[in-house]
Parts: sequence; C-alpha cells; structure tokens
Amino acid sequence: MDNKHHVVIVGGGFGGLYAARKLKGEKIKVTLIDRRNFHLFQPLLYQVATGGLSPADIATPLRFIFRHRKNVRVIMGEVKCFNPRSKKVVLLDGEVKYDSLIVAAGSGTHYFGNDHWQSLAPSLKGLEDATDIRSRILRAFEAAERETDPARIQSHLAFVIVGGGPTGVELAGTLAEIARDTLKNDFRSINTAAARIILLEGMDRILQTYPVKLSEKAVKSLERLGVEVRTGSFVTDISKNTVTVKRGENQQKISVSTVIWAAGVKASPLGQALAEVTEAKMDKAGRVIVNPDLSVPGYPDIYVIGDLAGFTHQNGKPLPGVAQVAMQQGRYVARLIKSKLHGKASKPFRYKDRGSMATIGRSAAVADLGWLKFSGFPAWLLWLFVHLMYVVEFQNRLLVLMQWANNYFTRNRSARLITFDQANPQMVSGPFENVPEQKDG
Amino acid sequence: MDNKHHVVIVGGGFGGLYAARKLKGEKIKVTLIDRRNFHLFQPLLYQVATGGLSPADIATPLRFIFRHRKNVRVIMGEVKCFNPRSKKVVLLDGEVKYDSLIVAAGSGTHYFGNDHWQSLAPSLKGLEDATDIRSRILRAFEAAERETDPARIQSHLAFVIVGGGPTGVELAGTLAEIARDTLKNDFRSINTAAARIILLEGMDRILQTYPVKLSEKAVKSLERLGVEVRTGSFVTDISKNTVTVKRGENQQKISVSTVIWAAGVKASPLGQALAEVTEAKMDKAGRVIVNPDLSVPGYPDIYVIGDLAGFTHQNGKPLPGVAQVAMQQGRYVARLIKSKLHGKASKPFRYKDRGSMATIGRSAAVADLGWLKFSGFPAWLLWLFVHLMYVVEFQNRLLVLMQWANNYFTRNRSARLITFDQANPQMVSGPFENVPEQKDG
Repeated sequence: MDNKHHVVIVGGGFGGLYAARKLKGEKIKVTLIDRRNFHLFQPLLYQVATGGLSPADIATPLRFIFRHRKNVRVIMGEVKCFNPRSKKVVLLDGEVKYDSLIVAAGSGTHYFGNDHWQSLAPSLKGLEDATDIRSRILRAFEAAERETDPARIQSHLAFVIVGGGPTGVELAGTLAEIARDTLKNDFRSINTAAARIILLEGMDRILQTYPVKLSEKAVKSLERLGVEVRTGSFVTDISKNTVTVKRGENQQKISVSTVIWAAGVKASPLGQALAEVTEAKMDKAGRVIVNPDLSVPGYPDIYVIGDLAGFTHQNGKPLPGVAQVAMQQGRYVARLIKSKLHGKASKPFRYKDRGSMATIGRSAAVADLGWLKFSGFPAWLLWLFVHLMYVVEFQNRLLVLMQWANNYFTRNRSARLITFDQANPQMVSGPFENVPEQKDG
Repeated sequence: MDNKHHVVIVGGGFGGLYAARKLKGEKIKVTLIDRRNFHLFQPLLYQVATGGLSPADIATPLRFIFRHRKNVRVIMGEVKCFNPRSKKVVLLDGEVKYDSLIVAAGSGTHYFGNDHWQSLAPSLKGLEDATDIRSRILRAFEAAERETDPARIQSHLAFVIVGGGPTGVELAGTLAEIARDTLKNDFRSINTAAARIILLEGMDRILQTYPVKLSEKAVKSLERLGVEVRTGSFVTDISKNTVTVKRGENQQKISVSTVIWAAGVKASPLGQALAEVTEAKMDKAGRVIVNPDLSVPGYPDIYVIGDLAGFTHQNGKPLPGVAQVAMQQGRYVARLIKSKLHGKASKPFRYKDRGSMATIGRSAAVADLGWLKFSGFPAWLLWLFVHLMYVVEFQNRLLVLMQWANNYFTRNRSARLITFDQANPQMVSGPFENVPEQKDG
C-alpha cells in the first residue's frame, strides 16, 4: 500500500510499450498486462513468415525491456472486462485496481463474416501465425516435389495472397523471391521459379493509403518479380485447394493449396467490452471513439490508444492502425498523466505523420514522406534504416542486421523450418501415388 | 531410368547426413528421406529449451545442405516399413526402390513403461520439445509471480530434471543460471534465485559414462550453481504438481510444477520394422545388431548406423548413442558402398573415440579425451570450440557465435518466448486468487 498513482496498461504492443517507457517518476507505478510475455515488432512479422528471421529476432520479453524500471510491473494475463466504477481491470484469473487506465489492446483479423476461412487462409497477426504460414509455404513446395500429377503440382505451386496493403505486398514480393532465388537449387523434380504468386486486392489499386504514383511503382516492382497483381478482385469463397474470385461480373476459381489472408483488420473485442461499461461509441471497425486527449468520454482516467482508438485526424480522416500512431499516442498519454498529476493542462493529441513505407522484395520499396515520394532502391535503403533504428531499441539489433546482410547477399533464408504441433503433425499434404523419379543429376 | 547405384538413406540426423555427404561420385545417386525438412544439431538443443538460441540457429534445411549436390535428392516423408525382397522402402504415402539402404532413424525417448508421463514430463528430443520446455519453464516463473500462496509459489519455482546424463546436467546447470542471473531483475514479487533445481539420477553417480573423478567435479560445479544433485533416486510416479522419488527404502513426494525427462533413450520403431523383415536380432534397447561392417546379417545391401545400430565396440561394450559414433559410421558406410562398387574389400568399422564433454552452466564443463581428463573453464572453452567447429559446417556459424558471446557477456537469453499452439493456448497455470501487490519499486 503506497500513495503512488497506479497506471494500468492493457497490451504490450507499440502503444502500451511506449506509454510504459515514458511513465517514469517517483509518484507513479505502472502495471503492464499482456497475454504474451513479449513485445512483438510486428512490421517484420512477414520476415518470420518467409523464413528470413527467427521469432526471437523480432520478439523481446516485456520483463527484459523493463527489468531496470522498478516502478513497472509486468503481468502475463488475459483481460476479461473493465469495471470503471470500482476502477478495476478484471482478468480471467484475478483483478487489478487502477488510478489511470490505458487500453492498448490492438487489433485482430477481420474475415468479413467468414470466420471459417481462418483455418484455410491464415492471417499474419502473431508469432504462431507467422511460423504456421512459414510451414504452409514450405510444405507446399515439398508436396509439389513429391507429386506426379501436373495439375496438382501447379496447384501446390500457386500462392494466393488476399489484400494489397503493405503486409500483402511485402509477403507477395518476398514469396516471389523465395521461389525464384532462395529455393532455386533445392528441388530435383519441380522448377520452383514456375510458382505463381497472385496478389488479390478488392479496390482499384494496391497500397490504397499511398499516393497513386507509388501504387503504380509498387505494381511494376511486383510484376518484375513475377507476382500477378489483380485489383478489383474480391474473394467470394475459400475451400480446400480453391479460391473463388469475383471481378466485376466474372467469377473465377483458382486452384491453389496456399492462401494467406492480409485483408481485413478489426479492433480487439476489449473495445466492445470497454464501450459496454462506459457507453462510449464505437466506429464501424470496432474502435472506441475517444476525446481529443484520447480519454474515453465521461471517463477522464481511462484512455484508449493505438489500433483500438477511433481518433479523427486533423484532416478529418480516422488515423490508420500503424505503429507510428500507437507510439505517438502512448507517449502522449504518458505525458498527459504526468501533467495531470502536477495539475498542469495539456494540448489535445496531434498526430505527426512521418510518412509510410513498404518493401517489395529484397531491394525495392516505396516511401511516402509527405514532402517526398520515392521508390526503388533508395526507398528500400530508407526502409531498412528506419526499421533497424526501431529494432535498435532491442538488444537483437546487431543480430538482425547480420542475419539481414547474410540473407541479402546469399539470397538464403536460414529459418526455413517446417515446425508443427507434436500432437497434430501435419505432414506434406499427400497422399501421393508414388515418389517421382529423380531427374538426372 | 539410369544405371546409377541408388543409395536410399532413412534419416537426416548425423549418421544420414554424413553418409550422404560422402556419397559423391558419378555412379551413385542418393535419396535422403526424413520426416522433417531440416537437420537438427541436437547437442545444442538444450540451448533452445533454455532460451539461449533460436530453433533456426541449430536446424538447417536438408535441401539447403545438399542444394549443390545434384546427385542427392531429399524427400520429406515418413517411412512405414521395408521390403528387402523387392528392395523397397515403403513410405506412408509412396515407395522408393533402392540398391543400397542405410537406415539411420535414430532414437526416441524411453519412459520405461510409463508413457503417460510424457505430457507431464516432456523430454528433449525435437525442436518442438525444446520450445515446449522453454514455454513451461518460463510459464512456471510467470505463475509464481502471479501466485499469493507461499506453498504454491515454492512449487512453481521447483524444477525437477530426471536423468543425470549430459542432457540432464546441461539443462540443470543452465536452468540454475537462468534463475540466478538471467531473470534476476525481471520479477517484482518473487525472488527467482530462490528457485530449486533438482537433478535426479537413478545410479550412484551422474555422468555414468565419464570417469568417476569428472562426475565428482560435475557435482561440485552444479552445487556451486545451486543445483541439488540426488543420486540413487528413482522416479516412481509423476502426477500434476508432484514427483514421487524412491531412494533406497525411502519414498518422498516433491511438490513441483515443471518436470523434464532426460532419462531414457529407446531406438526408433523402424529398428523393429527392419528386424521383422530381415530376422535381424535386436538388443535390449531396441537397436538392430549389425555385422562388423554395419550391414544387417544376411543383407549385405542394408546398413544400420547411429543410435539405431547395435554395434559392439572393440572393448566389448556397445557404442553409445552419440553424434560422434553416428558421423563416423555414416562416413564409413559411404566409403564401404563406394569400395564395393569398385569391387574392393573393406575393413570392419572401428570407432575412434575422440572423447566426450558436457557443459555445466556458462563457463564450466567436464571433458574426457581418454588421454586427458579435465574440467572447469578450460574444458568449457574446448567444449565451445568443438561445438562451434561442428556448427561451423552450417551457415549460421557466425550468428551462433555472436548470440553466444552476447548471452555470455550480458547473461541474457533473448529467445525467452512463451509460444503455444493457437488452438490450445495454455496460459499461465492459474487460477489465482488475485494479483499480488507490487513490492515497492
């Protein structure tokens, strides 16, 4: 029992992490609650899904990050709901009292009412998703190598990525390089370069949030790598080995064994849980509409930040669900709480857009810095620099850089492991008639 | 269809890998079959289980290893049985004809008739075992931090390792260091240094295969790290949170939430499958008794090597199931097959014992080179050198060395991730009454 101001933070993503970091001070104690024991550097998750980096390269134990911050306590636990009257966060197995509450629970994947697609077309949200997708991609090549039927070989060597946002673009580009470069010498029956990588986007262009010119550059870069980019294409059905795509009036079935979902994002269900008890409004994406200072209307001691916050930008548009926004909001709220403790007033939150970037394979990217838009190798170098700068806050900086340099120069990706749950080992997806004869070596 | 001599190798462990590497030559083609798509550097598996290295650091895709060896084809598949009459290996989903067959299927874990202990006391065999054990260890500390009942805290902070061979010793030593050093600053309610690490060994001393003096040194090193070493102690029962140990006439129950099995090894069931069709004899451990040239009696074109081979050493003892033996046997059989193709005779296999080593924590080890036995820091340096030399055959050499140096100097272990199967997320093992108050920071 002490008289410190107790800030409880739900979620150890970018928002929660940056808030906790800023909440230093003798009068404050912080409890950071997360379901996982690590902070995940999500912008590089696609590198894990494609075998370029290991999970531990982009995940850092939360306890390690705060080991020397004695006023921060980390709790691994799942939040069930909130009780603003008694100022409590209710976990599945316990509860925590707060003086100020920061909800930074992030977002999950939106299958637009088709949740049964999840097992057929996994999305790239967590570490386990990434290693699952990695296994599926590699298993598809293994199955193709074992197969004798030409149609089935083609289906094993087809990869559909649904959604032309940054994640979809990054996955498609990297996958194309894996097929054409990394695996070039690995197989004896199939030609991995014959793999088809199809990127589907419902709107009229990929990278919607970027300037039109950069979208066009991105398409060119992707096509140079051999990716088929199809805009205006909606997925209407996914079943085992088939994706049905609607484009205008046309329906088409694509025979494909690997589908990756990079399309929709929906806010964490904790947004709903919070809205229920605070009567806050939610937007269509399930985000909690917050005040200009990111607090929940009527509850000046509860803040929502990051992907879960419905905050309208100075230009009238809602802020996108990106790391930049979450970091800035985390820092803002931390400062705000400290100011309030000192009885000072604060300005409303203002987002400072530092630009956005997406990579396309190993040496191309598009960058939109607002005052400058560019693409190609310079954009890729900038992307690399910025990402390393942020990874640099983690102890793995040097290791990631080396792994990267190694991948870049050797075109190898060493983390090409097919791992699986012991209880449910999914083998190469046979049955096969037989083992094909080896072509002469 | 060609007239090359087709060597089929079952298993991509040390034996199979070294055989395939040696089987160069224009007249030979090789098919290497493994259930997994990678070769695993098992001697460092305990480092993955304790968060020091990532899975990809010690696993290399088999296809990558043989990418430039056009006469080697890799097949990911599960072998069901053998048909020596038609010279076929039968997979779950296909079959492969051979001219010569090398069975190098290795070994699994022996629970001495208590297979139901497996889920309570996992063993360290594959990569998934290692990440599972890693999660269990970390989850135990998380649970202790959340707990308020002193007895249950103690049980969460108790770790029992069953089996005082090299793996058990290495795990115990590393675990002690994690508790005392790595996690020192990470928790706010518990004192991680109060963790009990108990190493149980049924025989009268640990490291049975080493000279008595080195066993004694190992005990001293372990005790210096705070490990309780209990010899002559048999596990008679394992249930959730309790291990029952018999020592002489005494039975004792230890309250413990994490048990790791490092005790028994049994040969792969493929040994049995091979013995059935060849009428070969098996030893008590399920290994196939082989001729002095490692061939199966009556079948000069079938060889068994590595952990699966029951081969009696020149000194009358069966060879131990270690990487050294498998590597030498793999190389020997490869040379033998090539000699036979050239119509030359060969000498029987002779094992050249280069010694054995085991580490105890981050800077102690015991080494028995036959002509020289030593321990402590020099032994640890030698251990490091030898292991890196072998890892050096993999592209990750530099990365592993750096990771190691980093772990060594910072006492950190960056791969401390609690990962789980999405379908079955095992949370911290509550329920807890409440979240304990934070001690003053």
